[in-house]
Amino acid sequence: MKSDELFALLRRRGVLWPTAEIYGGAQGLYDYGPLGARLKRRIEEAWTTWFLGLSNDYYLIDPAEILPEAVVRASGHLENFTDPEVVCDACHSAFRADTVLEKIRPDGVDGLTAAEIAAIVHANRVHCPHCGSSELSVPPPFNLMFGLDYGVTGHERAYLRPETAQSSYLAFARMWDVGRHALPLGIAVVGKAYRNEIAPRQVLFRLRAFTQAELQIFFDPRGLPVPFDAVREERLPVLRVPRREAGEESPEWVTAAELVGKGNLPEFYVYHMVHTFRFFRDVLRYPGDRIRFFEKSDTERAFYNRIQFDIEVHVESLAGYKELGAVHYRGDYDLTRHGQGAGKDFTVTLTGGTRVLPHVLELTFGVDRNVWATADLLIAKDGERTVWRLPPYLAPVAVGVFPLIPKEHGSEAVRIANDLAAHGIPVGYDDTGTIGKRYARMDEAGTPFCVTVDGGTVGTGPEHGTVTLRERDGRTQSRWPVGELAGRIAPALLLPWPARA
Amino acid sequence: MKSDELFALLRRRGVLWPTAEIYGGAQGLYDYGPLGARLKRRIEEAWTTWFLGLSNDYYLIDPAEILPEAVVRASGHLENFTDPEVVCDACHSAFRADTVLEKIRPDGVDGLTAAEIAAIVHANRVHCPHCGSSELSVPPPFNLMFGLDYGVTGHERAYLRPETAQSSYLAFARMWDVGRHALPLGIAVVGKAYRNEIAPRQVLFRLRAFTQAELQIFFDPRGLPVPFDAVREERLPVLRVPRREAGEESPEWVTAAELVGKGNLPEFYVYHMVHTFRFFRDVLRYPGDRIRFFEKSDTERAFYNRIQFDIEVHVESLAGYKELGAVHYRGDYDLTRHGQGAGKDFTVTLTGGTRVLPHVLELTFGVDRNVWATADLLIAKDGERTVWRLPPYLAPVAVGVFPLIPKEHGSEAVRIANDLAAHGIPVGYDDTGTIGKRYARMDEAGTPFCVTVDGGTVGTGPEHGTVTLRERDGRTQSRWPVGELAGRIAPALLLPWPARA
Repeated sequence: MKSDELFALLRRRGVLWPTAEIYGGAQGLYDYGPLGARLKRRIEEAWTTWFLGLSNDYYLIDPAEILPEAVVRASGHLENFTDPEVVCDACHSAFRADTVLEKIRPDGVDGLTAAEIAAIVHANRVHCPHCGSSELSVPPPFNLMFGLDYGVTGHERAYLRPETAQSSYLAFARMWDVGRHALPLGIAVVGKAYRNEIAPRQVLFRLRAFTQAELQIFFDPRGLPVPFDAVREERLPVLRVPRREAGEESPEWVTAAELVGKGNLPEFYVYHMVHTFRFFRDVLRYPGDRIRFFEKSDTERAFYNRIQFDIEVHVESLAGYKELGAVHYRGDYDLTRHGQGAGKDFTVTLTGGTRVLPHVLELTFGVDRNVWATADLLIAKDGERTVWRLPPYLAPVAVGVFPLIPKEHGSEAVRIANDLAAHGIPVGYDDTGTIGKRYARMDEAGTPFCVTVDGGTVGTGPEHGTVTLRERDGRTQSRWPVGELAGRIAPALLLPWPARA
Repeated sequence: MKSDELFALLRRRGVLWPTAEIYGGAQGLYDYGPLGARLKRRIEEAWTTWFLGLSNDYYLIDPAEILPEAVVRASGHLENFTDPEVVCDACHSAFRADTVLEKIRPDGVDGLTAAEIAAIVHANRVHCPHCGSSELSVPPPFNLMFGLDYGVTGHERAYLRPETAQSSYLAFARMWDVGRHALPLGIAVVGKAYRNEIAPRQVLFRLRAFTQAELQIFFDPRGLPVPFDAVREERLPVLRVPRREAGEESPEWVTAAELVGKGNLPEFYVYHMVHTFRFFRDVLRYPGDRIRFFEKSDTERAFYNRIQFDIEVHVESLAGYKELGAVHYRGDYDLTRHGQGAGKDFTVTLTGGTRVLPHVLELTFGVDRNVWATADLLIAKDGERTVWRLPPYLAPVAVGVFPLIPKEHGSEAVRIANDLAAHGIPVGYDDTGTIGKRYARMDEAGTPFCVTVDGGTVGTGPEHGTVTLRERDGRTQSRWPVGELAGRIAPALLLPWPARA
């Protein structure tokens, strides 16, 4: 499906819509409706279960989204978190410089000053993409953070955090005290980050308020021990810099062992690439051949990263590979900067007395983008049917409950629905239209199971106390005792857990 | 416990700490650590399960926290969401006017203009509480919303939402389209709201970023049908205005039927008071005799409310009753205002053709305050023990898993811990110190179950494959087969569901 068509489907079903839609919307902001809110939450829980499942020493925290200025000064965001922009002096539109110049400078404008960009704009007689005027100017780089006048005196400044990772770095010292004084120590945050993007677009792909899931693994710089043998034969789709520079777009499938050996990557890094790949393929159930690890070169990667591979997935509705997550080896950049900023020393003493400043491996994941990706990759036409083939544990509604004839079977159907809900199973009750239409609505919403209550259920014959259980994927129908439904459905809703060794 | 003592305990255990603590903190902001994040999430889920359980037509959505200016202009927040402040011209401190004047005007300063407040300040020769100067001034009222320069042109203004409720009003028209075109329709939001409080204090009770859980029930103004007979004999602790004005602080216990009859309240309103009371008493397990419904008078209640009772709970650490939730009958204020603001008509056509503008009943709940209240009300000393008597389904860690001798029983204990976790049960693994110390740490964290793996478990004798299961509340210990643990523990973690009729 094209992006417009997919968005129309998602809006019609109440998965998501523009924020403040009745006021004409707000650029770069979306609200999740009932199905979207539940899907997003389940994707967050799946991520948390999988990655925190890698160790007993990884923890989820829930920090505030507002940061005092000292934090973003130390982290480098106040100085560096900018996008060069081009502004039209005629119509006052603003554009990202890399977008305006994408034909002239296909490699982007990273590293150029505003004056250098202005020179390129004028030398190439660039016109405003909106009104056509040639009166374009290039102001000083635009900081993407939202600032807040914090407190009442007018002397304090704070910012909405531009990435959740900062909250984990701030928490390291406290978590060290709370915990068992050992490395590795993992601190995860699932929450909002905010960026005043110059040009929000592609629905959930460039938002001004978005949800990240990020795990910061603090480890002894002398090594992060991992059970590498358990993953050494796993093949990963990798597009490294030399192959990219040769013009290739498709990844090569390479074993973990080869990435460490010939590929010269650390074992701990490749081990986490494997578990990340498994998360996308086995938990989110994206087709493996749509995924690639995209290596960033020295000039492309973020200034704090020593190694960076983005996880990209081919998203048909956006006509290309899109970054849905990443694995970042950040070294000691963050603890060093916050040590300087806060005037503290984050060196820790390990058992045996060795003192080290931990390094950080960051696993990062874009929650909103993956909500979209599950729709793009898992919604399929099957003849007349539109089926969202979500894994059962991600489905917003796990079971649809239908009375065949609402007047006759409604009260029993409600009783069954409430009983399933009391077992923690998300239920969708539907008593409108033919059973076929109700199946179709549930298929489109990704619901894996449907239960129909009929004359047999409430009658005195051999079908007394049984219902029809219909499964989305096989379209199979079978008769089940009401009392066995929760036991049949609940195990399919358990979130997958990683094999550690 | 006193507030300082309780906060010290919670900080030591990693339940919560000040945001950006390493930079000296930020007033009115706190981060939740591992135990706090999980407890907060479970309180949110308990609220959602209970109140959305009241109807098949109540839905949870997840909207953006940023609102365009037009929204808060229409809602009245741009004009009215202000606190009068007093500023010291000598030391530049700012204070809430009601706090500075609390001895002179014990009833507060609501309704007074800045000039009137200034006159009182000067007539009474008030001095700065911070530096003692008499050079105090009263600026125009201070709007509590955080404003954002939204977008890049400098011409757009947006705000962090001051209450989650606005997001539900904005969603009403879309949800009507998505849903089955019938009333009542409930729209719930659990999420952040932001207020630039003049004087943040009492840890989680006056924050600048806080989490609300709010359900807006849109209903036919001719009546919201409820199964009132099922609740008519329930007794509620109520402190109404006349009794308050007579100087009483303690509530009277009155049946739901009496509140409707002699008390002149609508059935639908009292029905929701009952379910709210049950949530605090039966789900959160606060002692019923610590709870009261506090009626707000005509002059006290928010301008949009027709009926308002706050749910107050006596919190020992804060030495008094504190508002932890409320039931608001808001009438058609919100849809009328947004209809005017957006130039739309939110009248809906019901089956049969009647057209109505829905009224709103709002159930609101302060998540952070209730995190604190569970600690205040449910942590108790029991001899040497400190026990947090959280209901099992709210406990951050449901089961502690201990190897008696880590070197001998560690691998089996890890296997059991992982198996329980894979069943969706939150596990805390602990192999440090004596078993007694490990029990004590789990008691303090509110963990209801502990499992010890010992020689019997891994041996070949009659105890092979069994573990010791210890329960927090009864301090009972019994021997259980490993394979039956998940089945024993998981049912205790199901969130309670309301009896609808």
